[in-house]
Amino acid sequence: MTAMRFFSDNAAAVHPAVMEAIAAANQVDTAYDGDALSQSLDDAFSELFETRCEVIWIASGTAANSVILAHFVRSWQGVFCHEEAHIEVDECGAPTFYSGGAKLMPLPGIGAKIDVDALRGRLAAIRKDVHQIQPAAISITNATEYGLAWRPDEIAEIGEVARGAGLKLHMDGARFANAVAFLDCAPADVTWRAGVDALSFGFTKNGAMMAEALVFFGGRGGAGARELKKRGGHLLSKGRFVAAQIRAMLEKDLWLENARAANAGAAALAAACGKRLMYPVEANELFVRLTAKEAARLRTAGYDFYDWGKDAARLVVSWDQDAGAVAPLAAAIAAL
Amino acid sequence: MTAMRFFSDNAAAVHPAVMEAIAAANQVDTAYDGDALSQSLDDAFSELFETRCEVIWIASGTAANSVILAHFVRSWQGVFCHEEAHIEVDECGAPTFYSGGAKLMPLPGIGAKIDVDALRGRLAAIRKDVHQIQPAAISITNATEYGLAWRPDEIAEIGEVARGAGLKLHMDGARFANAVAFLDCAPADVTWRAGVDALSFGFTKNGAMMAEALVFFGGRGGAGARELKKRGGHLLSKGRFVAAQIRAMLEKDLWLENARAANAGAAALAAACGKRLMYPVEANELFVRLTAKEAARLRTAGYDFYDWGKDAARLVVSWDQDAGAVAPLAAAIAAL
Amino acid sequence: MTAMRFFSDNAAAVHPAVMEAIAAANQVDTAYDGDALSQSLDDAFSELFETRCEVIWIASGTAANSVILAHFVRSWQGVFCHEEAHIEVDECGAPTFYSGGAKLMPLPGIGAKIDVDALRGRLAAIRKDVHQIQPAAISITNATEYGLAWRPDEIAEIGEVARGAGLKLHMDGARFANAVAFLDCAPADVTWRAGVDALSFGFTKNGAMMAEALVFFGGRGGAGARELKKRGGHLLSKGRFVAAQIRAMLEKDLWLENARAANAGAAALAAACGKRLMYPVEANELFVRLTAKEAARLRTAGYDFYDWGKDAARLVVSWDQDAGAVAPLAAAIAAL
Amino acid sequence: MTAMRFFSDNAAAVHPAVMEAIAAANQVDTAYDGDALSQSLDDAFSELFETRCEVIWIASGTAANSVILAHFVRSWQGVFCHEEAHIEVDECGAPTFYSGGAKLMPLPGIGAKIDVDALRGRLAAIRKDVHQIQPAAISITNATEYGLAWRPDEIAEIGEVARGAGLKLHMDGARFANAVAFLDCAPADVTWRAGVDALSFGFTKNGAMMAEALVFFGGRGGAGARELKKRGGHLLSKGRFVAAQIRAMLEKDLWLENARAANAGAAALAAACGKRLMYPVEANELFVRLTAKEAARLRTAGYDFYDWGKDAARLVVSWDQDAGAVAPLAAAIAAL
Repeated sequence: MTAMRFFSDNAAAVHPAVMEAIAAANQVDTAYDGDALSQSLDDAFSELFETRCEVIWIASGTAANSVILAHFVRSWQGVFCHEEAHIEVDECGAPTFYSGGAKLMPLPGIGAKIDVDALRGRLAAIRKDVHQIQPAAISITNATEYGLAWRPDEIAEIGEVARGAGLKLHMDGARFANAVAFLDCAPADVTWRAGVDALSFGFTKNGAMMAEALVFFGGRGGAGARELKKRGGHLLSKGRFVAAQIRAMLEKDLWLENARAANAGAAALAAACGKRLMYPVEANELFVRLTAKEAARLRTAGYDFYDWGKDAARLVVSWDQDAGAVAPLAAAIAAL
Repeated sequence: MTAMRFFSDNAAAVHPAVMEAIAAANQVDTAYDGDALSQSLDDAFSELFETRCEVIWIASGTAANSVILAHFVRSWQGVFCHEEAHIEVDECGAPTFYSGGAKLMPLPGIGAKIDVDALRGRLAAIRKDVHQIQPAAISITNATEYGLAWRPDEIAEIGEVARGAGLKLHMDGARFANAVAFLDCAPADVTWRAGVDALSFGFTKNGAMMAEALVFFGGRGGAGARELKKRGGHLLSKGRFVAAQIRAMLEKDLWLENARAANAGAAALAAACGKRLMYPVEANELFVRLTAKEAARLRTAGYDFYDWGKDAARLVVSWDQDAGAVAPLAAAIAAL
Repeated sequence: MTAMRFFSDNAAAVHPAVMEAIAAANQVDTAYDGDALSQSLDDAFSELFETRCEVIWIASGTAANSVILAHFVRSWQGVFCHEEAHIEVDECGAPTFYSGGAKLMPLPGIGAKIDVDALRGRLAAIRKDVHQIQPAAISITNATEYGLAWRPDEIAEIGEVARGAGLKLHMDGARFANAVAFLDCAPADVTWRAGVDALSFGFTKNGAMMAEALVFFGGRGGAGARELKKRGGHLLSKGRFVAAQIRAMLEKDLWLENARAANAGAAALAAACGKRLMYPVEANELFVRLTAKEAARLRTAGYDFYDWGKDAARLVVSWDQDAGAVAPLAAAIAAL
Repeated sequence: MTAMRFFSDNAAAVHPAVMEAIAAANQVDTAYDGDALSQSLDDAFSELFETRCEVIWIASGTAANSVILAHFVRSWQGVFCHEEAHIEVDECGAPTFYSGGAKLMPLPGIGAKIDVDALRGRLAAIRKDVHQIQPAAISITNATEYGLAWRPDEIAEIGEVARGAGLKLHMDGARFANAVAFLDCAPADVTWRAGVDALSFGFTKNGAMMAEALVFFGGRGGAGARELKKRGGHLLSKGRFVAAQIRAMLEKDLWLENARAANAGAAALAAACGKRLMYPVEANELFVRLTAKEAARLRTAGYDFYDWGKDAARLVVSWDQDAGAVAPLAAAIAAL
């Protein structure tokens, strides 16, 4: 039951409009990404981001991150990321695999935002020789693994370091929609205008079935990425079914609408959590202090969520769980 | 229009039963492959193949082949395949990528069946030292790239060579259904009973949307394969939508029904092609002699197909094109 | 001039006995490692280590470490090491390259010894799923990057954790001789008897020209390693010149004699450094507190060494710098 | 005994001048390639080739070829080579390993020279899509695996194809000296003037101990190559001993003198072989028809050589086997 599940947005249902778009795509068409839906993505995202974009669909966020990063770095180079970033912790080394061996170079920072001083310090400490791995890219996640939204000026500061050191800047946007919904800014403000070169724009967690977009800003960048996608077995032959999901998510800003609903649910839940909150709730994730006994009580009542180390839990609100849908859990937490 | 399209079965529509199964899977569930549908695959295939199987879903045939082969060989080893095999010619080197560098070792053979004597000869010619790449697997395709079905005894002969040399035997079954439908045999007869260790069982070309099964016979074999799948970005978070497709295809032998329909369409077309045929038509592909002028005439009439070098063409019949659906093209060819 | 150079033992002169052995090997012989010298290594090391060994020569320490680790882990697995280990910091990702993408998993610990509790904690924290990289080996360095010798019981403790978790235990022995010379123990005591599966036994820093030995204990283990060595371009055709160096180093325990000389030089220098020392001096490296001004003074006097961050320096004593040879520097430091 | 050994030039003795240069390099110096000998290579080769060169030493020919090719291609691209090229047949897949998975694309051609029409045909046949591997380089071997020297105009023809298709042109010069000695041309004539971008200049087979030079013409090209060399474990810490060999080989054109001696020995042997010869003898290798009985007779007499399939043998003459040294074998063959 929807009201009971706070495990992850990555297993939520698919939005009806996406299901309809999939059904509507069900006739024979050109294979791979030669169909009209796939071909329409460049224009659609270029409009959304107010700049020329090259866009490639792909079925998973891990693949999206890996293909972009492998496209940006050579096998002997490195990628700065937060030490709790999904690419570092939860992708079984996929970016290293796709890049032929590039090293992830983890950095600290509160709330899973890379600390820019730590970044500068690490950059300065690397000897410029062939013995030490030289970085070629930075990857940040927006919203972060702790549900925080990077502000435009924070990204711009990282972007400036990147440019200064000749590094590409990648944004893992598995929950990009939630960040933009919270910030209420133009998508451009937290991407290319702040120095981001490419974005993994996630839709799967936000109401799609299996659809992410690799967005290269400036209308350039995807040449090798297409080969890496094919080589990774990700050029699905009936690709129009992925492109259709993305188009449905862009239609009438469904991606924003869904994200706003999830964020609103999270905000409602946050109000009930009060001092239990470990981080401000900006997107659709809550990290709350919860004793083992309290957690057990909630689980007995049917709620489903992820433990986050000792005496803490993660609650994720999905697009189909608005403020009303989270009310029972909010009440249950308040009553603990 | 369906009656006009003979380009490839990889872009055909999705069967309504598959669409229904996808719709039926649309509620929240466990992520990745923890859902009941994914978990049911081992049993379902074990019954179909009359032996214990370990089964992993994946979204593309390229990924299926690559993960199995990378699981079977180390980076410094090799894989025998036909010189026109899909893995050699059309996957942008995916098996080499997934295996960390293993070499595909192409062999000749009529109709894209590996010639067993050429295989034996090549095996004998390889010096057993570290300078030459030592093979660790053989990959055959059933039905082949020329639409021929490997007979059980032909496979058994390859299987015997494989066992004798300590090689794993993989079958690329992108059109496995068409081969089994033609042979009218038990699936076991052309797989593990003939020495096949693992099968890429394709459903996408046969009515699914994006669904293939890695089938390891003997109930063993998938451990590293799961890591490779994850690392390749193929462990989709809403995996139940892939598993649902596969279950729908197995239901009431839809996979066989669809393949029989496509084969019947191909047979009807073959009758009209007569001496133009370059190979016997056993599955759902026809390779026909056609001058540039004749090809142009058919295209002007609206038919869509693939040139196959000079003065030849490939016609592929899909699951939704039975004998009736191909009648117009059959007539058009007969009238050339 | 020898008395002036404390930069690194990796650029020291070659011992005359090694030069003689190289000269003596200069006639035509079997190529690669088919010559009598190469073939004699298994027996020679088996005697030295009091157990059956399989031994492979290689020309660099980076290659030695990489081939062993790549042999022990699959591409999707990981290797625990100290966060300041040479493989993590100074080999441009070579072990990741050779293994096809395996991840180095850095751990803290004083003096570059892996803290065994940190190791246990990290092991416990890894979820046993395909999303997180599973470790398959541990690599420790003896003597460590800070010149400390692992005691047999310390290694045994790590070895026990390794066995318990099914991990291989590798020892980077670039300065193995210096550790054994300091401990005055049997080589077996700090290797296989303490649970070490394979050793990179370094000779280059200790008087050889370019010679390291991959030592697999238990007489097993080198099969894939030989392919990795060849594939890495390390199976030199006139390999006897490498094997000859190793045999010369083993002859009359020259490896121990050279290490004792270097250690003695380091000890003499340590006495002069007193409270400046950051770590006990057990092998041939000293880490000393030295202001920029003091460092400049020594350099003006002609001494050559490596800065170690702010207000610190590393002094390395080579096999040809005994207590007498370091006396001028000792006096200069004492006079600061 | 030198007069008995025709197995391979890769196991010959080291020239006395090289041994002396090694001995002369035996004092402490800067590590890796920071020493004066290593630093002098750019200038030395620039003079020899009459153009600005960037030069990197490396210890084996396999590593030389692999680093250059991996530097020129991305992991998803390909390298054209002859189907009997050393990189294709005898390097355990090293170029694929170093490049992270690039495919060697073998071509036919008489005497192991790539047939330029076959090259053009293959290039034209590759579909320009992401499904097929796109070539990024061509590698030719001079002298070839059958001891033939590519003429300047032959290379220029390949070079023109390369330029036209945007491919880099690499020359495997394991026996470059023998080719230049035969052609009696300027080294530039068979390299950059004919369109070669980089050369693996071999010295090991021609009197050195373990020394090859990666030569990038035009003074550019080595940036990533240095990282690949380090990552492969080939940046030997006492690198001056490799550089010293190369400088000794260049001194007073020793490389040419040695090659001329070997070629002269081969020519003398060729005269005795007459109609047995399968290819013209241009460098230092002979391929001769020899029945099993005849081969056995020569072996009984003490001669050592390599069988080349059925009823054929390969005889290689080394730098220390001039016309006089081969006289006994010449007589023995004439007497068969």
